[in-house]
Parts: sequence; C-alpha cells; structure tokens
Amino acid sequence: MADAVNHRLLLKSRPADRVSLDNFTVDKAAVPEPGPGEAIIKTLYLSLDPTNRVWMAGDSYLPAVAEGEVMRGLGLGQVVASNDESYPVGDLCIGAPGWQEYANTGEAQMPWNIVPRGTGLPPTTMLGALGMTGMTAYWGVTDVCRVKEGETFVVDGAAGAVGSVAGQVAKALGARVVGIAGTAEKCEWLVSELGFDAGVCYRDDDWKEQLKAACPDGVDAQFENVGGEIMNGVFDLLNVHGRVAVCGLISDYNENRPPSGPTNFGKVIFARLTVQGFLILDYGGRTMEALGVMIPWMQEGKLKHEETLVSGGVTKAPETLNMLFDGENRGKLILQVGEPELEVPEASS
Amino acid sequence: MADAVNHRLLLKSRPADRVSLDNFTVDKAAVPEPGPGEAIIKTLYLSLDPTNRVWMAGDSYLPAVAEGEVMRGLGLGQVVASNDESYPVGDLCIGAPGWQEYANTGEAQMPWNIVPRGTGLPPTTMLGALGMTGMTAYWGVTDVCRVKEGETFVVDGAAGAVGSVAGQVAKALGARVVGIAGTAEKCEWLVSELGFDAGVCYRDDDWKEQLKAACPDGVDAQFENVGGEIMNGVFDLLNVHGRVAVCGLISDYNENRPPSGPTNFGKVIFARLTVQGFLILDYGGRTMEALGVMIPWMQEGKLKHEETLVSGGVTKAPETLNMLFDGENRGKLILQVGEPELEVPEASS
Repeated sequence: MADAVNHRLLLKSRPADRVSLDNFTVDKAAVPEPGPGEAIIKTLYLSLDPTNRVWMAGDSYLPAVAEGEVMRGLGLGQVVASNDESYPVGDLCIGAPGWQEYANTGEAQMPWNIVPRGTGLPPTTMLGALGMTGMTAYWGVTDVCRVKEGETFVVDGAAGAVGSVAGQVAKALGARVVGIAGTAEKCEWLVSELGFDAGVCYRDDDWKEQLKAACPDGVDAQFENVGGEIMNGVFDLLNVHGRVAVCGLISDYNENRPPSGPTNFGKVIFARLTVQGFLILDYGGRTMEALGVMIPWMQEGKLKHEETLVSGGVTKAPETLNMLFDGENRGKLILQVGEPELEVPEASS
Repeated sequence: MADAVNHRLLLKSRPADRVSLDNFTVDKAAVPEPGPGEAIIKTLYLSLDPTNRVWMAGDSYLPAVAEGEVMRGLGLGQVVASNDESYPVGDLCIGAPGWQEYANTGEAQMPWNIVPRGTGLPPTTMLGALGMTGMTAYWGVTDVCRVKEGETFVVDGAAGAVGSVAGQVAKALGARVVGIAGTAEKCEWLVSELGFDAGVCYRDDDWKEQLKAACPDGVDAQFENVGGEIMNGVFDLLNVHGRVAVCGLISDYNENRPPSGPTNFGKVIFARLTVQGFLILDYGGRTMEALGVMIPWMQEGKLKHEETLVSGGVTKAPETLNMLFDGENRGKLILQVGEPELEVPEASS
C-alpha cells in the first residue's frame, strides 16, 4: 500500500451550471497512514446525490466546500489499516470519504459506521434504501407529510433514490401513491415493480391532466424533490389541510438564482397548507428507529432497493453526478471507485 | 320601522384593483319582518377586513360573493324585532350582516352571537381584539407560530387589527417582539403604547438593516400579513427551525395575479422552516378557550384594543375598505352604519 496513490478531487472552481472534471484538480497524494486512534478507509463506492451540487455552489445548511479542498461526498469503504479497534481491518463502513480513494477517520466530517455483518443484503443497500436517502424518504413521509391510510400521496423525482423509497413507504402506510418521473419506462417501473398506484411522465404535454386523473380525491401530501413547474402542478391539486414536505428543488440547482416558492402562494392560506422543509441531519439520532421498520419491510418485499451503478473510478464522479440532473438514474446513483483489498469478515455467530 | 328603508350594497362588478362604490348597486329594500324563528338585526358597525377584498375577487376558501348578491361582511348589530327567544330584542350581537342596514338571522351565512351583557368593555372590542381578528392573532401566535419565551417574533402589518394583537400576544408569552408598519408614528405607537420591543417602518430605505438590528438573534417566528418584499425581508432573517404563520398577503390582493411565495425558497430546506397557512374558521370551536386567556390579559392591561372608527353609513363601506390597503387605519377598521334604536338590556345580576 505504501507505493499506492490516493487520487483526490480538489474543488478548483464553482460550476456555473453543469459540473465538469474541469471544476476539479486531480491530485495524487500518498495513501495516508493511520495515526494513533485513526483508521484508513479505502473508498469502494461513492454515493452521488443532488446535495453534492449544493455543497459546490455556496454556503447552505453546511458551509460550501472550499476551493482547494477535497470534494465532500458520502460513500462506502473498507477499513484497510487501523489503529482504532472500533474499525476492524476488512470491515465495510459508510460515511463521508469525499471524492478520494482513501480517507482517514481522523479527518472525518461525520462519523463512520460499520456495515452490520451477515445481513445477507448487498452492502450498497446501506447507501440507498437503508442509507441516507432511504432515511430521508422515511422521515419525510412519516414525520413531515404525516401520511395516513387512505390519503393520496404524490412524489416527484419518483424514480430517484429518495422518491422511489418515499412512494414505497407511503404505500406501506396505506396511502394511494402517485409518482411523477421523466420517462414512460420509469413510470411503468414505479407501478409494476414498486407497487405505486400510478406514474405520470412530466414530459407528456398533458401531464397535469394525467396527474389530476390519477388523484380523483385530490392530493393530501406532496413530497417535493424537484421544484419549479412540477412542484406547482402538484401544489394546485392539494386538498384543504394538505402537507408539503420540501426535500429538494433539484430543477433549480443548476441555475444561478435561488429557487422560487409556489406561484399560487395564496393557496397556503385558503387551503391551510403546511409547507415544511427538512434535512436528514435532524433525524440522525433516530436511524435505528427507522431501520427497525424498514428492514422488516425489505424482508417482506414491501421495500425494494434499486440502484444505478456506474464504474470508472473517482475521476468519473463529476460527469456521473450530472446523470441526476438529466434523469438518467433509476434509484440510487452509485459510482464504483475501487475493489475491496481484503476479505470482508463474516458475522460472528 | 315599517316605512324604513334597508339600504343594501349588491355586488355589481368585481373590482380590477381598488374598490369603489361603482362596483355596487345601492339597493333600497323594505326593512325585513321576522318570520317564525327569525330575528331582525339592525347593523350598527361593519367590520372592514382584507378578506372582504378576497371575497369580491373570486372563489377562495369561501365561494366568491355572486354578482347581484349583498356584499358579505362581518359586523355588530342590535336585535330590533324577534321571533327567536335566543335573540332578545335590544341585545347587541356579532355576526355577518353583510353590507346592508338590516339583516335577517334566518338568512345568516354564519351564526349570530349575543355580546355578553355587563362586561364594561366597549361593544366594538368584540369586533377587534376580542373578535375575529383578535382570535386570528391569538391562534396564529400560539398554535401556528408556537412562540416560546425568549424567542424573537416579527409581525408585519403590525399596526393593523390582527398584527397589533399578534404582537401583544407574543409579548405576553415572553417573546422579543418586532413590528413592521408603514409610518414612524405607527412604529412609535407600537413601542410606547403596545409594548413592542421595536418598530420598523418599511418605507425607510434602510428598513432591512433596521430590522436586522432589531433582531440580533435572528427571527424564530414570522407572522405574515403582507406578503411580497416585506415577507421576503423577514424570511431572510429566519433562524433554523423557524416558523412562518401565513395569515394574509394584503400587498397582493389588489393585483390581478396570484401572490407569489418566498423568492429564496431553498431556505425552506436549508433552515428546515415550517410555513403554515391558517384561517380563523378552523378555530371556531375554540373561541371560549382563547377568550378565557385574552379577557384577563385585557383586564391586566397586557392587551389593548385599538380601533379606527369611520362614520357615514353603509354606502361608505367600499371607500373605507381601501384605507386598509393604503395603511390609513390603526387597529381595527370599523364603519359606523347606524345608531341603536333601543336601550341595550343590562346584565341580570
């Protein structure tokens, strides 16, 4: 490992719209050695999320990534060297390696968590349906949208990592679930594979009529991932006392202006709506509570993990991130960055 | 009474912007006689509210007033003839007489309520601080903004009927209270008479800087009556987990376009804000609960009723309504339409 290189993507310039490798310096550092109480994690998979784009743009709920700094990002890795007995060599773990091939736990911006051994689930599930995006979906549906049996729930970006899980969670709670996505194939998949009641393709000219037809009793809860015209189309169908969970506004993230609120804002009063933004970081302490519900759902087949896996190494991260904005992923978008160096320990029985 | 005339304002045309008597037909009907189980209420005072303008424009939370129909409006009247023992002749009552001089309880769109006898409070208090606008303020602050001791609370339209009470309620709950109003005199009055911590005049060029200086710890709760640029100015100062009670968007009501939401909408996510619209009609069953708190506050001097009383009869209602949009009222805007015909019964001891 001593001769190995740690390829790192350092932010060079803030993208004007789409992200490109030109916005980064590809740095070749030595693979770090663990100091006392530290462990070294080899990045196997990077989680690619709309929030990566937010972090490049400027200060938001977290400070922006500084120019010259390793790009911030979540991922799954393997402990390859350790002076910390809580990180045994060989174990897989999830955390925020950043866009680099090796990370030091001593420099982590958030804690690393060991992937439970012996669950029989693919490890990348812990980046998707049971990971940060899955938790986001779970709390958005249960705590923000407060979905009840028999209600109508609409989610946009429905084929994405958060949307696809949000719809399944709402379905498990007994709601009528309608998803909005960008292709007929995705809509078909939402219904046939994930059990949504209907899928509407926003690229169809008559998508608003289709949506209205799919929601004969109006909309009680809106899970917003997209913003802009799609947000407004759902908003117009909200019932009295409707709830809007604002999770993302991805259609605006590549624009150089702040995203705008609903254009028919008087409806907030007339229909007594609650519009609530949320971030998964406020639910960090409740992960075990969510997993206690979601793992059984997955075992019973009520919750499926879907991923779009791209290979090619860390330098492919910028280009791959754009797939989110072009709607080219289905489920969780993951970039494979490396292969495990060591055998993963089995569960002790 | 048989020869008396009931002047009624029938909606003729929907106003394009400002309201004018030209938008109404002044109708002279006979004073109604009560049928079985009915009572006739003589209108003494009309409550003039921004929502009158909403009701003229089109369907909202209530159907629009139809053309040819008596204009909808709240008010205070006296029972002048009665075949209903729950409405004794001579008693004062509050309800929705509409813009006319006499109303029949049998045609009421909402129930009439007798003004409690012998409270020693001026009857118009029941249209203001203890009436619909006072209740709106109370529930907006307590149930929607959920104001806690030590928090910073900002209300715009602060010198209006709702805003002036909202600030006093938040103050009674222990918040730091900042009001935004349209003149230096109103701002001075908010502080010296109503006990606000600061008043900011939005007509000053540097009002945003003044507001920021008045809120050194940011804003925890925003009570929104105005909309537009003023709403956005407060919104920009909201703290993480801030709450916005959307009560009115008066700056947009004279425009021929729907009011727009916050322009910096991404902040809803980053700061995990809750933006909630509400209407007093959802709290109709809780009036006694609110009065049980507010009447003692009024007796202790923590809550003051302020009114701007205009005289001139029912045909002055359209012109007087415009005072709300020009910011010419302080506290509750009331139009005196008639004088009591009978002595008001005293409390039975």
